[in-house]
Amino acid sequence: MNFTFEQLFDFTKNIFVKIGCPERDAETAAEVLLSADLRGVDSHGVARLSGYVRLWEAGRINPNPNVKIIHETPSTAVVDGDGGLGLVVAPVAMKVAMDKARNVGTGWVSVKHSNHYGIAGYHAMQALQENMIGLSMTNASPLVSPTFSKERLLGTNPISIAIPAKEQPPFVADMATTTAANGKLEILQRKGENAPEGWIQGKDGNPTTNPYGVKEGGSLLPLGGDREHGSHKGYALGSIVDIFSAVLSGANYGPWVPPFVAFLEPDPNPVGEGLGHFFGAMRVDAFRPADEFKSHMDKWIERFRSSATTPGHEKVLIPGDPERELEQERRKSGIPLLNPVEKDLKALGKKFKVPFAE
Amino acid sequence: MNFTFEQLFDFTKNIFVKIGCPERDAETAAEVLLSADLRGVDSHGVARLSGYVRLWEAGRINPNPNVKIIHETPSTAVVDGDGGLGLVVAPVAMKVAMDKARNVGTGWVSVKHSNHYGIAGYHAMQALQENMIGLSMTNASPLVSPTFSKERLLGTNPISIAIPAKEQPPFVADMATTTAANGKLEILQRKGENAPEGWIQGKDGNPTTNPYGVKEGGSLLPLGGDREHGSHKGYALGSIVDIFSAVLSGANYGPWVPPFVAFLEPDPNPVGEGLGHFFGAMRVDAFRPADEFKSHMDKWIERFRSSATTPGHEKVLIPGDPERELEQERRKSGIPLLNPVEKDLKALGKKFKVPFAE
Repeated sequence: MNFTFEQLFDFTKNIFVKIGCPERDAETAAEVLLSADLRGVDSHGVARLSGYVRLWEAGRINPNPNVKIIHETPSTAVVDGDGGLGLVVAPVAMKVAMDKARNVGTGWVSVKHSNHYGIAGYHAMQALQENMIGLSMTNASPLVSPTFSKERLLGTNPISIAIPAKEQPPFVADMATTTAANGKLEILQRKGENAPEGWIQGKDGNPTTNPYGVKEGGSLLPLGGDREHGSHKGYALGSIVDIFSAVLSGANYGPWVPPFVAFLEPDPNPVGEGLGHFFGAMRVDAFRPADEFKSHMDKWIERFRSSATTPGHEKVLIPGDPERELEQERRKSGIPLLNPVEKDLKALGKKFKVPFAE
Repeated sequence: MNFTFEQLFDFTKNIFVKIGCPERDAETAAEVLLSADLRGVDSHGVARLSGYVRLWEAGRINPNPNVKIIHETPSTAVVDGDGGLGLVVAPVAMKVAMDKARNVGTGWVSVKHSNHYGIAGYHAMQALQENMIGLSMTNASPLVSPTFSKERLLGTNPISIAIPAKEQPPFVADMATTTAANGKLEILQRKGENAPEGWIQGKDGNPTTNPYGVKEGGSLLPLGGDREHGSHKGYALGSIVDIFSAVLSGANYGPWVPPFVAFLEPDPNPVGEGLGHFFGAMRVDAFRPADEFKSHMDKWIERFRSSATTPGHEKVLIPGDPERELEQERRKSGIPLLNPVEKDLKALGKKFKVPFAE
């Protein structure tokens, strides 16, 4: 069934208020979470709301955190999220990066003691309105094996980079550093289909096409899939995200990143606090006049979008095109929720006495 | 046959002097170029020397450039390479990034009007000696097709990121944003073997395993290979390198990047000057005390390197391990050159009256 953005926003905000978030934080969290549903990254949106609530019930989320800068230089900062929702901590940290960029050209912020922050793209895109290039990355619960390893040592560790253009819509890359995200395996499971080669490996470390491979103790594979197809590059990218997000800030990294699911306990011997993010903002006019840059971005985008296609394809996409088209459609005709998600939200509403989409 | 680093260094330096480089620039260029041979990226090393000379003969390289900053903020700069060898321009620009990092925490430099700069890793690694994280990327002659496109619109656009550790050697990722680099196709051609799927597509835009596919008008494929295996991510990464290197600086981007080979003419209607690079330097202690950061990097590296391996593999590698091992070996037992490369260098030596490895 389809729901309007407003219906889901009000519900989500009210739930966050019920767990103790200040009104304004609850609004921010709802906006960030729902940007995933709008942009078609359904696995990171409202479907995760009860996951956040369970983490709060387990005492692993501070609903009213004192988010603060604990170290800084003119172009950098480390932000302590005080155990808050990543959905609330991340926008504060991105704002710090943009403030620094306003002053000295660029700003770079590493964050510790945070939690899942929704989709990477939301945060990177905040920079666009000020003619800045935005960057956002985060580490995440370990589900990914490095090339040649059978252990789960990395998360799907996404990277998003948003670049403004003039007449053209912005360039917005937003991608896990794995071949495929976990959400795609769930789709295959529902359809009863096998996974393509290069997506996952079994618990024994051998490649598998079993779509339950990860659930049964295996791992997602880094972008590239195997060594011959460049998985060492995906592994390096995921590692860089982990190091920038957590080793720079003092958060947990690698296999120590606390799991998102409340039924799994965090490591009893953590190497840092919470999980980590990394944000960047670069003022375009710190390099060349903004208008000149944006005109060339238009030319870049137009050249790529109009290039000759391979057989069976109608057009070449620019990063961000599919998500933007989906957002336009969903703002108009609503956000579709799967039945189990709808049921889950209704139960959540009942528990907290918050009416769901009425 | 094997040659010592010193033999190849002296020869390379003398050739660069002969084409008009000042002594010091010639030394820098030789050091940068040969770092590729030491680290096993043979396609980017001394084998390219006569390619640079031919570009100079075609009037497309300025041997004595006035490399200068044309725009800056406290944390950024744009450097004009004045048509110089990338091997000379890039170290100047990386130094500017590091100077800025010393002052305000980080430094970010976009470069225009340059040329091929050797291996990305050399430049990123300059940051290590000062407890900085180094970043280096460059665009390159168009050989790569975006997902769903059959045109060559991007170069192999490499990214290198170097991160210091304490007792452990540094983490050094250095990778083309394609599934496989062009040099690997040449190896297959010599062996008479087919290319794996996901490496290249033919001129018609269909996948092919013909190792001559690119020579015959086809393209290399972005990391991921095809859409199902995440090639849209490799395409996004290659695009980001292109935009940071050239749209930010005012260099040529996409299909307008001048070809490295002298027998192909640059586009008569360029969109910028020369090709572009992008460099970054982040002082580790702009985030947390350097010693603390480096101890955690040791822990990160040790945990990953000692993780359980997949069947048939002895150890999990850290980015930079294979290149470092090769460098240690080649500094000891010399740099092997293929016969055609040796012959080519001897002919070059004869032409310029520079004795080769005597």
